[in-house]
Amino acid sequence: MEKKIVLLPGDGIGKEIMESAKKVLAAIESEYHHRFILQECAIGGDALDRYGVPLPDDTLHACNEADAVLLGSVGGPKWDNQPPEFRPEKGLLGIRKGLGLFANLRPVKTFPPLLHASPLKEEIVKDSDMMIVRELTGGLYFGEPSERRNNGEDVVDTLAYSRHEIERIVEKGFESAQIRNKHLTSVDKANVLESSRVWREIVNEKAADYPDVEVEHLLVDAAAMKLITNPSGFDVVVTENLFGDILSDEASVLTGSLGMLPSASVRTDGLGMYEPVHGSAPDIAGKGIANPIGMILSTALMLEYSLGMQEEAKAIESAVMDCLEQGYHTADLKIKDGKQLSTDEITEAIIENL
Amino acid sequence: MEKKIVLLPGDGIGKEIMESAKKVLAAIESEYHHRFILQECAIGGDALDRYGVPLPDDTLHACNEADAVLLGSVGGPKWDNQPPEFRPEKGLLGIRKGLGLFANLRPVKTFPPLLHASPLKEEIVKDSDMMIVRELTGGLYFGEPSERRNNGEDVVDTLAYSRHEIERIVEKGFESAQIRNKHLTSVDKANVLESSRVWREIVNEKAADYPDVEVEHLLVDAAAMKLITNPSGFDVVVTENLFGDILSDEASVLTGSLGMLPSASVRTDGLGMYEPVHGSAPDIAGKGIANPIGMILSTALMLEYSLGMQEEAKAIESAVMDCLEQGYHTADLKIKDGKQLSTDEITEAIIENL
Ligand SMILES: [Mg+2]
Ligand SMILES: [Mg+2]
Repeated sequence: MEKKIVLLPGDGIGKEIMESAKKVLAAIESEYHHRFILQECAIGGDALDRYGVPLPDDTLHACNEADAVLLGSVGGPKWDNQPPEFRPEKGLLGIRKGLGLFANLRPVKTFPPLLHASPLKEEIVKDSDMMIVRELTGGLYFGEPSERRNNGEDVVDTLAYSRHEIERIVEKGFESAQIRNKHLTSVDKANVLESSRVWREIVNEKAADYPDVEVEHLLVDAAAMKLITNPSGFDVVVTENLFGDILSDEASVLTGSLGMLPSASVRTDGLGMYEPVHGSAPDIAGKGIANPIGMILSTALMLEYSLGMQEEAKAIESAVMDCLEQGYHTADLKIKDGKQLSTDEITEAIIENL
Repeated sequence: MEKKIVLLPGDGIGKEIMESAKKVLAAIESEYHHRFILQECAIGGDALDRYGVPLPDDTLHACNEADAVLLGSVGGPKWDNQPPEFRPEKGLLGIRKGLGLFANLRPVKTFPPLLHASPLKEEIVKDSDMMIVRELTGGLYFGEPSERRNNGEDVVDTLAYSRHEIERIVEKGFESAQIRNKHLTSVDKANVLESSRVWREIVNEKAADYPDVEVEHLLVDAAAMKLITNPSGFDVVVTENLFGDILSDEASVLTGSLGMLPSASVRTDGLGMYEPVHGSAPDIAGKGIANPIGMILSTALMLEYSLGMQEEAKAIESAVMDCLEQGYHTADLKIKDGKQLSTDEITEAIIENL
């Protein structure tokens, strides 16, 4: 297959780990006879320095023409005193909005050689493998009115959804469950919120279109408990923006390997932007010691969800797992009797396992 | 001192564990020369059976005249098919609203002999001792409009607060921090929500009135992470209704002893209702094996927060801890080489340690 991928290295360690992603993509190209047309564009602080804006029009245009987008990371102390409209993070929000990426995919999976770093007991967390599908562009973070009233005596925010917005994210949840373990947990607060009652109705309607997927409804407070007491009891979780923000961040610390987690923001036609959950780590940027695994697993997620390359994605995930089991790790990780490698070295080790 | 306490045993194990609370109150009376005037009233399923409503007027009236209210638990399968207005839980919502109890206090503390039951690693959870102060009568669960629009194509809920509502809960947070370890974590989503920006301003204004309390602001998603990675890093957490619902339930499972946790719903003048976090456990009701510790610690919380009896409260908490350290436990708990006791027996064991 031939696919167009836009690369947005961004700031801090973003540039280094994007080099790792490029090497892995090259290895996949030759192994599976694909052709990846790569186009590198500016975003974040890098774009501010070079073009004076965190999201140049050319970048957004290139992303819109691509099959998928890979992002390193944005931000750093250098731009902390910029006015809000000229913050690197605005580039990220702008691209999500500009591309209409309404579904945030946040997989959380344990890595057996790293279980010792989990705050949870190993027997509780060990088989966890979940995908949180969060609505990203609606709900309480975007609803109007959001304002002060009566000379500041009162304040309101609005949780607003259209049926269409709920339907398309619920469909993403069911589709994820179909290609995973066919279990969908829909999280809401239907005992209190009208929006959650509509959400639950839509999930129950859509369930008829996915008869192979088992559906469970869970209240958001109960979900926050179950993530800790029984994280391996989840397959796919689908939920609205605010609940998904809280639960996906809660879930991200369960396995003790936040630095390894990939994420995606996608829309219905398959276009998506893929990025590690971790930040730009300016303190270690340029030293060649950054952990590229979150970036490499984001690349795998891109192959699976935007480019239809399930086998290739699984191969990358297995290669990462093998590499860790062989004891190879970067400076941020500890593996008993393991061997610490640089960014380049661990990238090579992963590619050798491909 | 002479204090009027209304007792609401309610349903299921509520009746049995309320007997334990009465024995502990009697022991405190004679030890510290107080006089507790106890009045027992009906609520929940019990009230439905006897008076046809989940919250009789007499019960609400008696609570309004009292210095504090102790509640066992409400609900059970017997009343599950009642129409919504005649559910036992309506009694609970009715009394909170009728008494204007706007602050929910949810302490979470580890019990060293029970640490093995925590889903977290012992070294992570071991020194945890926090108090979550949740706003209970405002925000997204009560704001108007909460409705479907455009023939059901759109739906909105409203997160609404007045300055007054935020001020009084923030004050409760600071007051709790003052009598604890003088650290307050205010949780909001001020990077996105206007209501959170007002919340944060009010916290910063009020901070001037409590110069001995150190204040920290944390975003709700970061708070959901920190509860797992560093639970002992919290003292008092103050937050709005929805965030508090999610975070207090998340926190309740950290220590592995949810069955032991007390809670309170209070208002500004000190009147409060105190109840264990656990439910009515109809499956074990009437067997004499229920764990009364959540109820007994709720009694201690009442003495501390509504009746101004700090010393007496500490005495009860110490007696519970001593009893567990001596290896005594109920059927729901396991202590290595411990001795399993009935509800009555463990109540006596706690009183002997007073
Ligand atoms: Mg977040
Ligand atoms: Mg709750």
